[in-house]
Amino acid sequence: MSVLQSYSEAKLIAYLQQGQSDINKILDEYFPQEDKSVPLYQAIRYSLFAGGKYLRSNLCLAACEAVGGSREAALPFAAALELIHTYSLVHDDLPAMDNDDLRRGKPTSHKVYGEATAILVGDALLTESFRLIAQKGMKAGASPEVVLQAIVELASGAGLKGMVLGQFLDIQSEGPSIMGEKELSIIHRNKTGALIRAAVRMGAILGNAKPTNLQRLTQYGESVGLSFQIMDDILDLMGEEEELGKRIGQDTVKEKWTYPRLIGIEESVRRANRLSDEAIVALEPFGQEAMMLRGIAMYAINRKK
Amino acid sequence: MSVLQSYSEAKLIAYLQQGQSDINKILDEYFPQEDKSVPLYQAIRYSLFAGGKYLRSNLCLAACEAVGGSREAALPFAAALELIHTYSLVHDDLPAMDNDDLRRGKPTSHKVYGEATAILVGDALLTESFRLIAQKGMKAGASPEVVLQAIVELASGAGLKGMVLGQFLDIQSEGPSIMGEKELSIIHRNKTGALIRAAVRMGAILGNAKPTNLQRLTQYGESVGLSFQIMDDILDLMGEEEELGKRIGQDTVKEKWTYPRLIGIEESVRRANRLSDEAIVALEPFGQEAMMLRGIAMYAINRKK
Repeated sequence: MSVLQSYSEAKLIAYLQQGQSDINKILDEYFPQEDKSVPLYQAIRYSLFAGGKYLRSNLCLAACEAVGGSREAALPFAAALELIHTYSLVHDDLPAMDNDDLRRGKPTSHKVYGEATAILVGDALLTESFRLIAQKGMKAGASPEVVLQAIVELASGAGLKGMVLGQFLDIQSEGPSIMGEKELSIIHRNKTGALIRAAVRMGAILGNAKPTNLQRLTQYGESVGLSFQIMDDILDLMGEEEELGKRIGQDTVKEKWTYPRLIGIEESVRRANRLSDEAIVALEPFGQEAMMLRGIAMYAINRKK
Repeated sequence: MSVLQSYSEAKLIAYLQQGQSDINKILDEYFPQEDKSVPLYQAIRYSLFAGGKYLRSNLCLAACEAVGGSREAALPFAAALELIHTYSLVHDDLPAMDNDDLRRGKPTSHKVYGEATAILVGDALLTESFRLIAQKGMKAGASPEVVLQAIVELASGAGLKGMVLGQFLDIQSEGPSIMGEKELSIIHRNKTGALIRAAVRMGAILGNAKPTNLQRLTQYGESVGLSFQIMDDILDLMGEEEELGKRIGQDTVKEKWTYPRLIGIEESVRRANRLSDEAIVALEPFGQEAMMLRGIAMYAINRKK
């Protein structure tokens, strides 16, 4: 337990805030407020700077540092993860998808700018995430081969066999039909897990992790990803709307399949805790340098939003 | 005129068909029909293999060959262009966007699979286009630096300062408001032109074009792109529905601004012809190796679909 001793929640919060600040600086330069020549900037900034948790981006930074890599080299990739995450929220909130009108405490993109613009905001964020990496990855210090590897990771986590698949299965599964835990786990692992896993793996790849470390960090990412989504399900039932910045109880209204619906709240909490523990166990061979990854695994189950 | 002498329409058609066949082979392997584990494959293949013109992909291949590059090295990038083009059609056809129910002679994606799936099909195609390049670009023979340059080109043409911008401006401009030729040219140059320009530039970059050749091919791409879109406007008024595979007269119904609406049909035809000539003039320093690019510039204004 010695490696956990120097951990404090204050340190983690400071770390996450530093990540948020560094990433926002990149994004602010990339989508400059004062540039009126690109009319979509305003709508993009509305969703991008709405106070997310910066979980995926910080996981990428922390994983890179855990294997001894340079945080600076991972920053453009962390920023790209925020772009992809924000695109997925904007599209998921659309009337044809989850039809949500509140996100991060504000009306959703399509409520403010209309559906057509919200679709285009998502399309632009997704496209620009790859341009940002391809343009800035090498300048930040990564070799071109490593930048390409990171692009494969990002696109794999976000695409047809990752996040998009999860969202598709999620929408298909709404309603009163019966679902088992195995099916639900597949949805969760893809819908949320795949991009979180990719975030951790990208950080490890950028830090030139040796194969055994990449494998351990992949396990970590998978466990954190699922525990994070189970907590999301729990918070949808028991969280504070003001804190969460979105309406609670929406999963129930939409008859979504969630862990609490399937196995009850108490068992869901146990499951999330166990996954968080497993994530920390996967980090065993690492020392102090994985402190923030351990912190994030604990944060995933102790958060209020 | 000697370089034009050996050109024949039959040769061009054979070239375009060979490109289509080679690209479809890549796409068929990438989205395998028999793989039932990814349920979106079916919906993706529905839009992908609907008999497009393969203009952008063939431009990429022909530009690569024009500067002495290897056609093989450009193939994955040409395939990625088809993915991006198809994603843009699927999203543009959505009810919140252009609300079209017929495309390439078949009901549009959202008519067959529903809106949510059509949004996800587009998101998946866009994401996978970058994965395909990052995964296969080097294997096909390009250096990692060149692959990254090509990704920047593709994302620039498709993104916030290219195709997405054009689509946004196009939607904003619908209706009875007044528009000048300058504004319309900006919409067209972004909506259609930017990706066509990117296709040509990607090919040139993959063929390691020297700067002066890249510049000439960029001019070519810009002229062909705009002439192509003006012909699209004309075909929407005067084309055969059966041949086009989509409803004609839709621009008029939606009060879209087009060249015929702005300057009349005759002047539009003249404009398209002049742009096609300008494209061919930009190729002057090239010899036989740019024959197919010349052919495509002529095809752009002589096509029926």
